Amino acid sequence: MSKKRVSCGLDLGFDGDLKASIEGACSEGYDFVCVDLVDPKQRTPFLKCSAGHRTGDASEPDFMLRSQEWSTLVVGKMSQWISFSGSDLDKATDEGSAHEELNFAAYLSLPAMLVHLQNEDCASLAKLVYTHLLRSHHNLTMWVCVPLTHTDGECNGNTEKSVSPWRWWNKFRVLCNYHNRVGVALQITADLPDQAEIAQWLGEPIKVVVLHTSVFLCNRKGYPVLSRAHQSLMVQFFKLNCQVLITGNYSHHDGVRVYQQYIAHLYENQPPPDQYEIFSKGYEDYLQSPLQPLMDNLESATYEVFEKDPVKYVKYREAICECLIDRVPERDADTTVTVVMVLGAGRGPLVRAALQAAQNAKRKIKCYAVEKNASASVTLQLLKRTEWANDDVTIVSSDMRVWNAPELADIIISELLGSFGDNELSPECLDGAERFLKTDAISIPSSYTSYLSPASSQKLFNEVTAASALDRDKPKETAFETPYVVRIHNYNELATAKPVFTFKHPSFSGKDKEENVINTENLNEGTKLHQLRNARHVELSFDISSDTVLHGLAGYFYCSLYKDICISIVPESHSPGMFSWFPLFFPLLNPIQVNNGGKVIVNIWRCCLGQKVWYEWAITEPCISPIHNPGGRSYTIGL
Amino acid sequence: MSKKRVSCGLDLGFDGDLKASIEGACSEGYDFVCVDLVDPKQRTPFLKCSAGHRTGDASEPDFMLRSQEWSTLVVGKMSQWISFSGSDLDKATDEGSAHEELNFAAYLSLPAMLVHLQNEDCASLAKLVYTHLLRSHHNLTMWVCVPLTHTDGECNGNTEKSVSPWRWWNKFRVLCNYHNRVGVALQITADLPDQAEIAQWLGEPIKVVVLHTSVFLCNRKGYPVLSRAHQSLMVQFFKLNCQVLITGNYSHHDGVRVYQQYIAHLYENQPPPDQYEIFSKGYEDYLQSPLQPLMDNLESATYEVFEKDPVKYVKYREAICECLIDRVPERDADTTVTVVMVLGAGRGPLVRAALQAAQNAKRKIKCYAVEKNASASVTLQLLKRTEWANDDVTIVSSDMRVWNAPELADIIISELLGSFGDNELSPECLDGAERFLKTDAISIPSSYTSYLSPASSQKLFNEVTAASALDRDKPKETAFETPYVVRIHNYNELATAKPVFTFKHPSFSGKDKEENVINTENLNEGTKLHQLRNARHVELSFDISSDTVLHGLAGYFYCSLYKDICISIVPESHSPGMFSWFPLFFPLLNPIQVNNGGKVIVNIWRCCLGQKVWYEWAITEPCISPIHNPGGRSYTIGL
Repeated sequence: MSKKRVSCGLDLGFDGDLKASIEGACSEGYDFVCVDLVDPKQRTPFLKCSAGHRTGDASEPDFMLRSQEWSTLVVGKMSQWISFSGSDLDKATDEGSAHEELNFAAYLSLPAMLVHLQNEDCASLAKLVYTHLLRSHHNLTMWVCVPLTHTDGECNGNTEKSVSPWRWWNKFRVLCNYHNRVGVALQITADLPDQAEIAQWLGEPIKVVVLHTSVFLCNRKGYPVLSRAHQSLMVQFFKLNCQVLITGNYSHHDGVRVYQQYIAHLYENQPPPDQYEIFSKGYEDYLQSPLQPLMDNLESATYEVFEKDPVKYVKYREAICECLIDRVPERDADTTVTVVMVLGAGRGPLVRAALQAAQNAKRKIKCYAVEKNASASVTLQLLKRTEWANDDVTIVSSDMRVWNAPELADIIISELLGSFGDNELSPECLDGAERFLKTDAISIPSSYTSYLSPASSQKLFNEVTAASALDRDKPKETAFETPYVVRIHNYNELATAKPVFTFKHPSFSGKDKEENVINTENLNEGTKLHQLRNARHVELSFDISSDTVLHGLAGYFYCSLYKDICISIVPESHSPGMFSWFPLFFPLLNPIQVNNGGKVIVNIWRCCLGQKVWYEWAITEPCISPIHNPGGRSYTIGL
Repeated sequence: MSKKRVSCGLDLGFDGDLKASIEGACSEGYDFVCVDLVDPKQRTPFLKCSAGHRTGDASEPDFMLRSQEWSTLVVGKMSQWISFSGSDLDKATDEGSAHEELNFAAYLSLPAMLVHLQNEDCASLAKLVYTHLLRSHHNLTMWVCVPLTHTDGECNGNTEKSVSPWRWWNKFRVLCNYHNRVGVALQITADLPDQAEIAQWLGEPIKVVVLHTSVFLCNRKGYPVLSRAHQSLMVQFFKLNCQVLITGNYSHHDGVRVYQQYIAHLYENQPPPDQYEIFSKGYEDYLQSPLQPLMDNLESATYEVFEKDPVKYVKYREAICECLIDRVPERDADTTVTVVMVLGAGRGPLVRAALQAAQNAKRKIKCYAVEKNASASVTLQLLKRTEWANDDVTIVSSDMRVWNAPELADIIISELLGSFGDNELSPECLDGAERFLKTDAISIPSSYTSYLSPASSQKLFNEVTAASALDRDKPKETAFETPYVVRIHNYNELATAKPVFTFKHPSFSGKDKEENVINTENLNEGTKLHQLRNARHVELSFDISSDTVLHGLAGYFYCSLYKDICISIVPESHSPGMFSWFPLFFPLLNPIQVNNGGKVIVNIWRCCLGQKVWYEWAITEPCISPIHNPGGRSYTIGL
């Protein structure tokens, strides 16, 4: 079977005949098993008899399996009687026992160890695990097991109090400083919380979903199935590439295989991925530096990818068409020639869109294709001789900011937007083109607005941390003060995105242009004004409705091409199927813990100085962060 | 005058004849002046006319003063009309003007620039200042001016709302990432807040106290004086080496000198420093690595300093005396010889105390002076031949943990405590001496307890940051995971210290000793037990009654020598005049913002493994920190 399948494990508890049991589980379709490393019935306090002195079956002797089997098929479980409570000596004894089990798991080269959290009182266990991870050289991953919901009946007498196991997990992993080998084993409970509470987990590194057999229902044929709500939950977690672990008693006449079969069935019958998901496959949570098409020339391959977008150029064509019809009354259609300038023509997709739009609108256009990338101009020249041989197209190999246009434009068309709208310096480029616009000229796009939302994602935080560790020559903060283009995936959006910076083009309207020219008469002062008018600052406030950790800000754009024709990558209004832009992620140096009902207040600046533009950002609620990227020390965009 | 005096400045506002005015101020006794760099009356928007184009008196021409005068006598003031409000262009214009003023201050080499905060809306100003500090190469210090109290009448209509200017300052300096050239200019108001609010400022880098002439009262002779409450406030700030700036109108017939004279008078008439203050002069907030007297031998000079303590040995003498009297009835005074062993005798102060105590108690003792530092033993041998020639003193050059004592001890006396009690491994040392104790033997000290309190101190945080930056070969976190011995001074203790770890000696009582011997029969297991029984973990909760920032934990000890005779460096019970120990400061990697009414929960572990002992610590409320010093990676104490 070439199709990807879900990895499914079986909890065996303590098993006297591990070899036979593993063979049994594998033949039932399971990929791994989970076992107690110490017999819970024979548990012996650490001090009385350390592992080396034990006799009998208290723990699994290593010669039962080959090391390759231990390291691929067996996940260990830490004894649940280890509680770090009681007297100083009791605690110390528990610590000794836990160390012994972890060392034993490492000795056997197990791939993972399951550690159960019973409540929020997990500091000493976290300390033990963290210390172990730092000290040892193996690759043991910790699966921190917490239930999806938990009701604490004991502490409140007769009224049951719902507590948040997410808080247990959060405490554990922050104490472990977000160690990347500490993941979640999420126990699915029969009762499910609301989607907001489920969403809390979407930004967490979930390694395995634990399904107790008692959570399954029985269908009419007597086979175990999950409720609809549980099914859709599982589909959410399948997207995060979780494994599944089946635990609990079973008595089906077909044996334990029926659970694995059901999970495999569920996995195979997920809704098929959409175009965006297919395109972005493999890019999930992968950090990329934003393009700098102004400083660096794009490569042909990059153009090729973007030209394939099934949505973008359709929208441009519609926008140009509508604009041409609005601009030229039908009676003048044969006589009036509209001067259209494509600014940043690349390999010609917008020229093509303009020519098609003119045909559809039945209007005449004269098209200038302005492109600063000389290599791309070669392609444009070829297209002019071939595809556009019968059209009025002029290829201009120049930067629009310095080009001396031979006439004024009716319409300028550009696609200079980055994931965060203005972050590839569209405002500065189009400002530079205003010199050759008619006073009533139209820009397509006519305006664009960047958007931000607060995001929780340990995955992205760990990716940035890894980037920071890799680049040892740079200060630690550099990687955290750089925005990344990334298909954010294993994350939880904490609030609806809000608008940030808006730019309209042309920046003047009608007779304003005259004034503008007057203002820029003094070239020195004018340059300064030019820089300043694209500087921005906003403060955004987001209401947060769950306990969470803020790791950064997800940036998007909404762009109005012409009138109500728009393209958007803002989640709420995302143009369906458009894949040309992944979001822009602004990381934070230090994750910020936010409580349910709290606020996140973000300050973000767009700064312009000399030949550079950059963003600075800071959080001022629920607590204050330092300003990120002050003076553009870590990241700037070159003009 | 050799006595230190307080530096006092005068606010001149915008002054057309700066040279004459400075000469005037100096002749009136002032040390510096504070001036507007741009005439507030003639302020010109940045865009219309940049500094280079200005004419007339709009700003001070640099040739008015010699550069040495600019750099020592003049503090600049940023124009208060710069507010970063209004349209994008207004904000950008303000940014330009502010940059211009800062550049002008830097050009003149001014030592400091006063920047007023009007409210909590200071993010853009902070961004500007922070960027300027990072980008420029001069040493301009920012004096961030905030009032001590502020009532906001505008925003709430007729009811006045008291707001906390400390929050303005906190937001500003955290946005500036605690930059060490950002300090406070604290404007003293006529109304004073309660001491808790004043205490908020004691951990802040207060550079100057600003006194408006309207805050002064008029005494019977017509001279300006401060109220008693203001006087005691000033004395608190004098301890932090603040300067004073006089501002506002004055009309006294003796001129402005009367204010400087009064401040100088107040400064000279502070209460004299106590013995502890005299001893610790110059050590304020200076980080020292804790001694490791077990791994490293102390130097003679170190012994010499500690022997001068006016309190410690008196207390030991009293304790030994009382113990001898309790132990030997008067009728046996002539016949019974008490075997006293001084463990860690150093250069003999405890031997001397024991001999004096025996004399006072009229009891006979046989004294063993055990010292592992062979160099110190030389001194002990000399003392035996001279000062102690008539006493029964045996010098033993050995480590108490391996010494084969020729007889069992009645009393063991030691001074092995560090600032945090057990942090110089007194428990492990005295455990090693239990082999040669009688079953009813007494240890002086009989027990000791470490204490912790949460502390706010930007000064200490900056010192640790500086230590981290200096030692580039070590990971960034190392300096933040090391406790420091430090005379904490510019700090605010956020809650009363609470007990942490207690150790009692001997660890057995009476017949327990027999059991203890049995338990340690198996040497291997016994060693493990020995290690584990000194491991500890506690969780401490502190109620916080002001908005603040937690930078670390201040550690102390309380030690019971014998019965109710004790020595302590816990603030509430500090032995008066005892100077042998400064507190131990446990830093935090990231400062934690705490709100009034919130809790700080601390977890701290004492860990023992192999030949090492260390602490790990973490905060779990109001938010969770990573565990500091996991596995002793940054700091251990060697056995």
